[in-house]
Amino acid sequence: MEVHRQAHLKNDSLLKALALQPTPHTPIWLMRQAGRYLPEYNKTRAKAGSFLALAKTPALAAEVTLQPLERFPLDAAIVFSDILTIPDAMGLGLAFAEGEGPRFERPLRGEKEILSLEKPDLSRLQYVFDAVRESKRALSGRVPLIGFSGSPFTLACYMVEGSGSDDWRTLKAMRHARTDLLHRILEVNARAVADYLNAQIEAGADAVMLFDTWGGTLAHDDYETFSLSYSRKIFENIKGAPTILFTKGGNPWLGAMMQSGCAAVGLDWTSDARAARKLAGGRVALQGNLDPVALFAPPERVRDAARKVLESFGPAPGHIFNLGHGILPQTPVESVAALVEEVHAYSARQRAQAPARP
Amino acid sequence: MEVHRQAHLKNDSLLKALALQPTPHTPIWLMRQAGRYLPEYNKTRAKAGSFLALAKTPALAAEVTLQPLERFPLDAAIVFSDILTIPDAMGLGLAFAEGEGPRFERPLRGEKEILSLEKPDLSRLQYVFDAVRESKRALSGRVPLIGFSGSPFTLACYMVEGSGSDDWRTLKAMRHARTDLLHRILEVNARAVADYLNAQIEAGADAVMLFDTWGGTLAHDDYETFSLSYSRKIFENIKGAPTILFTKGGNPWLGAMMQSGCAAVGLDWTSDARAARKLAGGRVALQGNLDPVALFAPPERVRDAARKVLESFGPAPGHIFNLGHGILPQTPVESVAALVEEVHAYSARQRAQAPARP
Repeated sequence: MEVHRQAHLKNDSLLKALALQPTPHTPIWLMRQAGRYLPEYNKTRAKAGSFLALAKTPALAAEVTLQPLERFPLDAAIVFSDILTIPDAMGLGLAFAEGEGPRFERPLRGEKEILSLEKPDLSRLQYVFDAVRESKRALSGRVPLIGFSGSPFTLACYMVEGSGSDDWRTLKAMRHARTDLLHRILEVNARAVADYLNAQIEAGADAVMLFDTWGGTLAHDDYETFSLSYSRKIFENIKGAPTILFTKGGNPWLGAMMQSGCAAVGLDWTSDARAARKLAGGRVALQGNLDPVALFAPPERVRDAARKVLESFGPAPGHIFNLGHGILPQTPVESVAALVEEVHAYSARQRAQAPARP
Repeated sequence: MEVHRQAHLKNDSLLKALALQPTPHTPIWLMRQAGRYLPEYNKTRAKAGSFLALAKTPALAAEVTLQPLERFPLDAAIVFSDILTIPDAMGLGLAFAEGEGPRFERPLRGEKEILSLEKPDLSRLQYVFDAVRESKRALSGRVPLIGFSGSPFTLACYMVEGSGSDDWRTLKAMRHARTDLLHRILEVNARAVADYLNAQIEAGADAVMLFDTWGGTLAHDDYETFSLSYSRKIFENIKGAPTILFTKGGNPWLGAMMQSGCAAVGLDWTSDARAARKLAGGRVALQGNLDPVALFAPPERVRDAARKVLESFGPAPGHIFNLGHGILPQTPVESVAALVEEVHAYSARQRAQAPARP
């Protein structure tokens, strides 16, 4: 880790937690914290015309990256972007129909296309690095900036299937019928993601996160082969910033994820935080894991739920508070305010009481 | 267990496996084995007019219950019905729009309605018991017949939300804001499900299964409180037949599920069968866990995948082969034929070789 960068941060609690060092309170940020639950985000998005136009206009992307920080004393910013920028830069044609998930105009299924697949020229992703650079400048050292990408497997899901899916049938049929072709896609993706995250770090990202949104849909023995082994290759090649790995539904493989070379493992809300802390054994940090739907409760119940999560992780260094998945568009803003305040206040009290405990 | 019933079965391998007794091969049945992947099912359904009409006409329900047995040497039949019959009988008005999931015309949200909720009169579910009786008669002892219900929590999900959901936001908001009301619904559901399953057993069901389809969406500490504790009450009250508990995404709670009083725990395809076998310690049977999408591969790959699952469970008594979730409508029929044949043949070979192993 580049220590000079950390030294310039006014609030480096996220980086300290990632390095398993003590912090005055548990740092908190929220997946999709720059998003549709914020009226100011919707205004900027309307100005941009669409989600993709917003993501591809660095000045506006930086603007929305900072918006949640203006409202809440969050301990990190995450650059506004999408997990599927790489296959878009490979020429698959990313599109978002209103109210639907992502879609690729040219899904990747033919043997010829797969065998000639190459990692994209990074110049086609310059808009992301520019957004990182502009966000970093605008933050002027308030908190660390997180960069990210979809994992090689999650990228492959969308690349082969062409869109989201309940069962990833096309992808999984390829896994059984033409395993070689799936591995070829994953290899190219892994090299592309490593280059892409390193370029985000060079542009100013203080930490990077791998979103393995669909790895949890794999059969038990397939997760290592088709998802984790490729994430591991990426962690081996990341230089200069700590890494976070999040697999939604990753419970069966948490132990293996913790040994993949990442600095932190993200937990969804179904994970047993106490068991995960034990499994981590102080060797890897953990991030999570409040159910995003808990934010639909009245503020006092949100505070209860936040305390419960903090109790389950305990006050030892190495916990980053987050939701167990992205914040939902209809989330009440006052719930987020109550959450951030409670996490800071209660975790500071936990630390104050901790020395008295055996 | 009523031994006289078992004694009349020509193939009792399912019941033997549930009782952790040796069988000549691993018994196999498939969740939703009577379903849309079978042309003859689609014909009968067209004759009935709709899914619900089919489920509510005992003669036709019995007809489709037996259809998969005519094609494949499966080791069990499961009565054709729906997991949501109980709330329908409570008066919530179950409906299925074409191509969509279930929907309730009168979702349960108001305090007054919830406080006056009662378990339904079993006479309103007579069509299910008639379907069990007719199926049992038509089977004439070939294989055991499985009865089933949705779990109290899964019923509550649909009853409160009114339909399927990505996040069960209404239900979970009630969990945080009015925990008392959710518990009230779950208590009534648990009593209703126990009565309902006992009546299916009286009508001839040889085993009963609890489908906890959505329990796996609960926050870690909530699963015991809002799902498993109510399933446990049911198992305490079931008389005369072994029970199977299946929670999709249940990985974090498998140990607790195994101690809930059920005879078998169902595993989805993400579960680690080897770890589950160890955890079960020969005290509870396991059911599962091939990825339903593996059936979209060529027959030879289906056989490979089946062998891999059998290897992961091993030849010791107490494994029932199944998919990790319901069979998909577009599944090729020849894949199912290959699967059933391979499970029988390979598991018989496993047993033959087992004594030679240390």
